[in-house]
Amino acid sequence: MLEYFFKPKSVCLIGASKNPEKLGFKILKNIIDGKYNGKIFPVNPNADTILNLRCYKNISEIPDLVDLAVIVIPSDYVCDVAEECGKKGVKGLIVISAGFKETGEEGKKKEERLKEIVQKYKMRLIGPNCLGVIDTKNKLNASFAFEMPPEGEISFITQSGALGTAILDWSIKENIGLSKFISFGNKADVNEIDLIEELGNDPNTNVILLYIEGVSDGKKLIDIGKKVSIKKPIIVVKGGKTEKGIKTVSSHTGSLSGSDIAFDAAVEQSGMIRAKTVEELFDLSLIFSYQPILKGENIGIVTNAGGPSVMAVDMIEEIGLKLAEFSPQTIEKLKSFLPSASNVYNPVDILGDAKADRYEKAIECVISDENVDGIMIILTPQITTQIEEVAESIVRKSKQYDKPIITCFMGGKRVEQGIKILKENKIPNYFFPERGITSFKAMSDYRKGIEKKLRGKIIKFKVEVEKVKEKIEYLREQKIEIIGDIEGREILSLYGINVINSFLAKNQDECEKFLKENKGIYVMKLVSPDIIHKTEAGGIRLNITEAEEGKKAFLEIINSAKKYKPDAEIKGVQIQPMIKEGIEVIIGVSKDIQFGHLIMFGLGGIYVELLKDVSFRIIPITDIDAENMINEIKTVKILKGFRNMPKMDINSIKETLLKVSQLVSDFPIIKEMDINPLIVREKGCIAIDVRFGFEFN
Amino acid sequence: MLEYFFKPKSVCLIGASKNPEKLGFKILKNIIDGKYNGKIFPVNPNADTILNLRCYKNISEIPDLVDLAVIVIPSDYVCDVAEECGKKGVKGLIVISAGFKETGEEGKKKEERLKEIVQKYKMRLIGPNCLGVIDTKNKLNASFAFEMPPEGEISFITQSGALGTAILDWSIKENIGLSKFISFGNKADVNEIDLIEELGNDPNTNVILLYIEGVSDGKKLIDIGKKVSIKKPIIVVKGGKTEKGIKTVSSHTGSLSGSDIAFDAAVEQSGMIRAKTVEELFDLSLIFSYQPILKGENIGIVTNAGGPSVMAVDMIEEIGLKLAEFSPQTIEKLKSFLPSASNVYNPVDILGDAKADRYEKAIECVISDENVDGIMIILTPQITTQIEEVAESIVRKSKQYDKPIITCFMGGKRVEQGIKILKENKIPNYFFPERGITSFKAMSDYRKGIEKKLRGKIIKFKVEVEKVKEKIEYLREQKIEIIGDIEGREILSLYGINVINSFLAKNQDECEKFLKENKGIYVMKLVSPDIIHKTEAGGIRLNITEAEEGKKAFLEIINSAKKYKPDAEIKGVQIQPMIKEGIEVIIGVSKDIQFGHLIMFGLGGIYVELLKDVSFRIIPITDIDAENMINEIKTVKILKGFRNMPKMDINSIKETLLKVSQLVSDFPIIKEMDINPLIVREKGCIAIDVRFGFEFN
Repeated sequence: MLEYFFKPKSVCLIGASKNPEKLGFKILKNIIDGKYNGKIFPVNPNADTILNLRCYKNISEIPDLVDLAVIVIPSDYVCDVAEECGKKGVKGLIVISAGFKETGEEGKKKEERLKEIVQKYKMRLIGPNCLGVIDTKNKLNASFAFEMPPEGEISFITQSGALGTAILDWSIKENIGLSKFISFGNKADVNEIDLIEELGNDPNTNVILLYIEGVSDGKKLIDIGKKVSIKKPIIVVKGGKTEKGIKTVSSHTGSLSGSDIAFDAAVEQSGMIRAKTVEELFDLSLIFSYQPILKGENIGIVTNAGGPSVMAVDMIEEIGLKLAEFSPQTIEKLKSFLPSASNVYNPVDILGDAKADRYEKAIECVISDENVDGIMIILTPQITTQIEEVAESIVRKSKQYDKPIITCFMGGKRVEQGIKILKENKIPNYFFPERGITSFKAMSDYRKGIEKKLRGKIIKFKVEVEKVKEKIEYLREQKIEIIGDIEGREILSLYGINVINSFLAKNQDECEKFLKENKGIYVMKLVSPDIIHKTEAGGIRLNITEAEEGKKAFLEIINSAKKYKPDAEIKGVQIQPMIKEGIEVIIGVSKDIQFGHLIMFGLGGIYVELLKDVSFRIIPITDIDAENMINEIKTVKILKGFRNMPKMDINSIKETLLKVSQLVSDFPIIKEMDINPLIVREKGCIAIDVRFGFEFN
Repeated sequence: MLEYFFKPKSVCLIGASKNPEKLGFKILKNIIDGKYNGKIFPVNPNADTILNLRCYKNISEIPDLVDLAVIVIPSDYVCDVAEECGKKGVKGLIVISAGFKETGEEGKKKEERLKEIVQKYKMRLIGPNCLGVIDTKNKLNASFAFEMPPEGEISFITQSGALGTAILDWSIKENIGLSKFISFGNKADVNEIDLIEELGNDPNTNVILLYIEGVSDGKKLIDIGKKVSIKKPIIVVKGGKTEKGIKTVSSHTGSLSGSDIAFDAAVEQSGMIRAKTVEELFDLSLIFSYQPILKGENIGIVTNAGGPSVMAVDMIEEIGLKLAEFSPQTIEKLKSFLPSASNVYNPVDILGDAKADRYEKAIECVISDENVDGIMIILTPQITTQIEEVAESIVRKSKQYDKPIITCFMGGKRVEQGIKILKENKIPNYFFPERGITSFKAMSDYRKGIEKKLRGKIIKFKVEVEKVKEKIEYLREQKIEIIGDIEGREILSLYGINVINSFLAKNQDECEKFLKENKGIYVMKLVSPDIIHKTEAGGIRLNITEAEEGKKAFLEIINSAKKYKPDAEIKGVQIQPMIKEGIEVIIGVSKDIQFGHLIMFGLGGIYVELLKDVSFRIIPITDIDAENMINEIKTVKILKGFRNMPKMDINSIKETLLKVSQLVSDFPIIKEMDINPLIVREKGCIAIDVRFGFEFN
């Protein structure tokens, strides 16, 4: 859809300049030097030619059609020029100029006007306040980057232009090929979601990298993320994780940054890959772009040095991959030619004096073993090591087998040439074994995501939508924004969630009568919309069995509540069976400014409060999301029969999570809710206390 | 002590060779090329001269004294030659040759014989199976490394020779200066502890790096580690963290590898710094070697790009450093010259068009602020950025101020020259902001360690050593290796640990009498040396208040125990007051093969079993160690008055930890013990159950 940004038939540069110090000169030179093969129209009222191209006074003077206009003039004039572009029939605008939203109120107004103009003429806009766009395949460098990066399959989308310049510079030095580079600045129109979608359909892109600070539309990001992830990996780094980091983001781009928890959940749900640092972004981009996907988790290692292979093995264990177990045939083959001091089991240590032929034979044995899914080759530059020859052996094997190969040629000067050979042949080299293994892990997670997570379904249970609608309408009319147990449980119940029975006694007599007629062990709880902390108000009594006892408790609860808050409305006391078995869990819902509703799961009490051992997803969730939420918490073992404890009905939690997700999707007016506790038992689960908050205005 | 390895007056090379393919040639050439200024004596019975040096038939033929002999002949001949060296009066041997312990039984014997010879002649030995020794200050390259690294203050000790070659190669490429490089191989004699001590006293070394797989003597490592750490940082990477990693270590060096938990505890206690990866080892070595120590935790940032500074701020928050708050004067000064769109608060964003003068002024403002302890300068190569000039500004400021400065010049080709200037002037540059911040954090931790942890005291409480000795002697005679509650509590009590009172009823009557005379709520527990799991045996009864009830319980417990294990010796039933208040914690002791006794602390129940939320130290511990152990666990808040819970007496736990440490130090024959639970209350704590295991043979 955005092809005119990357493959325009003609480009005009508004603000072209003869002065080599100016961006208007640099960009024009970049377009020319990049060997762009369409028509180029510099626009500048005060020049006849620039860099040997005829210069136009204004855009309307251009005799041809213009697909793309790059604008690099002071922000005050941008809107008028954009209007002219619209009239001329330009399809895409790249506004390099700064001085918009990022500078405050005044700039924000300009940006709003610019957006209106773009919409009016059905143009699309990248920027303002950006570095521009590069497409190496189409030989378009419409940016003020210093140089064009080499051609490749990795595309990079960045909200930070400065980070963009660093990455371009790095790609040139390291000879890492890029396909498209897009700095989207203030994203007044085209945003990361449009770009991910575009690159998802781009045959020249096999990996999408994204640096982002604020998200434009959380739910849409998840949707597009899912669709594209299933085709190719999206690796994302987010600036602004911590509170202070988020503050720094706002102060420098004016981006609205949601919580990092929501972002993390969104990445997890959508199958995207979150790199913790820019370094990891690079590491992952290479393996994903250069190598086939790891089909399992079994890693083989061939090394000429013990120490580094120990580190690799440590990392494999820590991170949850597997050290491959070779077949007996592989071990036999290895034994047949390796010196006796070698280790023929994984990691294969072919010793410090190994030359290229020994490397090649060992690699062949390991990579051809069907128990091996991927292989890491470690080389340290010892006295007789044939570094370039080993690199060439690896390249040969890499062409023969469809399994990912990565290398760890450790050192500096002596390994340089070998690494160059590897890079040229798309073998990712990591200076340290740990980083290579981390990259394998990301691949394995990505594959698992595609195989399962991204195929999860949003389950629609048969529920009483209409009845809940009525109830909520009533609450809206009554302006009741918070509801507690009794009404809350009714809503849950209408969505098929098992809730505890409860009898509302409005006076002592009703209480007595109920307890006489229904033998059992009960909890009595104050019902008052005005008192939230019932325990503090003396509003809870446990272990009630006798009618007399209950009658007394009723009075005490009411008196205590009146004392606690004299003007509170008191509706009575609810009488609930006491549930003694089972484990308390919590399901909560809250709202993030960027991603909308978040659903939370965790064990009750200290686990959630102190250990923060909880998992989050963005609503709506799929069946697999619900499953993963439960399995993600560290204390999940408690539910699965830890020590002598019985196994709890995890499936019933999953169902409850899905029903809550459905409820909140159906009624986004729910601002927050908590089921706390939900008691899970060996069979089924039961919601005890619940609280809803609505957002009616 | 080991000066003849680094500054010998004369060196002989036994196994010198004319064949450039052989190590015996390479090493001789390295010694000569390194410009060693002492006497060199090649030894080879079949040559007259090698590389223009007169060659000797054997060592006794050498007319001069020989300080250091480097041996590189087949392992079968090494012992005989070592004997000759001894007779000649050689002080140090470096045995490069492999074929010893690492190859199996046969080799192990050779290594044992070699050790004996070395001891007999009071020589010292580095190796066998090593790369050799380099000292850049003394211009000695007695190794088969490819090249001599540049001169500097970082010394590197490595158990893996291969990793050594990689690191040397890296140091040459990156122009990182080294002082000493020692590959110690099988460490038949000189080990990492000797070397740390030696380098601790070496004025040419300001940072010690260590790669290690197995530790020679755990307790000594801690002692020496403490002594040296207070003078200079020791940064260590250990290979073999996970089970599989440890297995890999054993298969390649035959090192005995203790648990990683013990190693971690040892590093923590000794003030050493553990790098997680070799990459981190490098990162940390630069900041520690090049920059003054960070005196506080407040970091200032100057940047020309928003994105990277967001990442730096995120990392500062995550890792527990502080983003410095500038004084009003600093902010005023910054405002006075920075463009209005700049951010004058920390991080100071001086904008993409910042040239060197703006950088220099901003750095001056920030570094001179007394609220700033260290500063990171971020640069991305934007169109007008004066990269080299900024580097020079930074160098100037670095010379003016005694605060650590690090940089993050991001990019590739364009920033290369700037980074070169920084490196030459000992400003550590990190390609990614996160790694720089991590390095600052290590500095801050190191400083805190010196200020407090390393000054901790081992407290000696007044205890009844003799009485415990008697008791243990008795147990030894009786061959009783495990003791439970009653005897165990007696021992604790003799060491001043508060234990629960307990009455041992041998029959129903005694039980009845006790309960009649002592009103209260009691627990009754079976006493039998043959039954460990009392609950399973029906051996525990709670909430006993009445004498009758107790009498009945006595019978039931005994009968149940007899049924559970008919041949068990039953000593009776102990009657203990029930403790209802307080929080259960655990103190445990176990033994590691390399480090000896480990002491563990954690909260009881699920916290230790499922969450593994525990801390460890090697015994003996100091008062500060005990304090840190308690504060290290994640659930410590539960002890400190979480929510409405009362504050527990943490000091009493600390004291108990110290007393347990003293007990185990006094009686290392204790193999393991557990106080589980120790109940901590608002005032004091009390040991309920305890179990000791002894190792008498």
